[in-house]
Amino acid sequence: MRAEYINPFIEATVDVFKTMLGCEVERTGLAVNQTFCPQFDITGIIGLSGRAHGDVVISFERDVALKATEALVGGTCGEITEDVVDTVGELTNMIAGNAKTQLESLEMSLALPTVIVGHNHSIRFPSKVKPLSLPFQSKWGNFNIEVGLIESPVDAHIVVG
Amino acid sequence: MRAEYINPFIEATVDVFKTMLGCEVERTGLAVNQTFCPQFDITGIIGLSGRAHGDVVISFERDVALKATEALVGGTCGEITEDVVDTVGELTNMIAGNAKTQLESLEMSLALPTVIVGHNHSIRFPSKVKPLSLPFQSKWGNFNIEVGLIESPVDAHIVVG
Repeated sequence: MRAEYINPFIEATVDVFKTMLGCEVERTGLAVNQTFCPQFDITGIIGLSGRAHGDVVISFERDVALKATEALVGGTCGEITEDVVDTVGELTNMIAGNAKTQLESLEMSLALPTVIVGHNHSIRFPSKVKPLSLPFQSKWGNFNIEVGLIESPVDAHIVVG
Repeated sequence: MRAEYINPFIEATVDVFKTMLGCEVERTGLAVNQTFCPQFDITGIIGLSGRAHGDVVISFERDVALKATEALVGGTCGEITEDVVDTVGELTNMIAGNAKTQLESLEMSLALPTVIVGHNHSIRFPSKVKPLSLPFQSKWGNFNIEVGLIESPVDAHIVVG
């Protein structure tokens, strides 16, 4: 995956957390993930396809998901309810959507988010994909974004001389 | 999700298992899944987007994933290795790809598969999506396919009289 594709995902994450949740976040690293990746408590996944295709995976510590839900839908949230699942899906959708708008040359469209709940789950890309992994921290706790994109094969060009 | 969209996924599953793995499978039910869905040991997810967008989720009992890997790549498989992860991803990709070819009017393209490993994980669609759930059985054990698709909004047409 090209390194220049990752900045839009970083900017989208900072922007969505700030404007939708009123929460400043900070990226604490960047890694090329070639091994099994342990995940946090709740994870959103969304597929992208177009001139590139791949997935965005965002895994949240439980407290981040609960506080984000409180910020987005109001009330107090003490456990992983349907509102929390929908919030994680919607954040995943918004971050991927914001990033794809910045990557308009790739002409990608979004699938629907799915949300994984469970301790000790791990999420793996096919071995041919080397996703980039971005850890973030916030006042609510930590979350992690992985992006794996592969450029789609280009149609052959016929040059008429 | 329209009921007529589900038959291509059933046919694709039967076809991919038979031609790629030499394994006959039988669908044992059909349910509209509106609640949390417990999953088996290893699950492939792939996104689709186009005139409809959504996801295909295929969850395998451990033995089905191991035997499928032996059938596809050869050798003996006693634990969930990278080959098993790749096999589950590839089966998910092939079934979704076969079904999308049958649903050509929806002009869908595929994202990349991701694979979830872990006991007691559950996978949830956003609450606005009501996926159809298809349990299957085979000589190797059980697996389950869920398909959630939403038709994309149609662009407004301007009629010039």
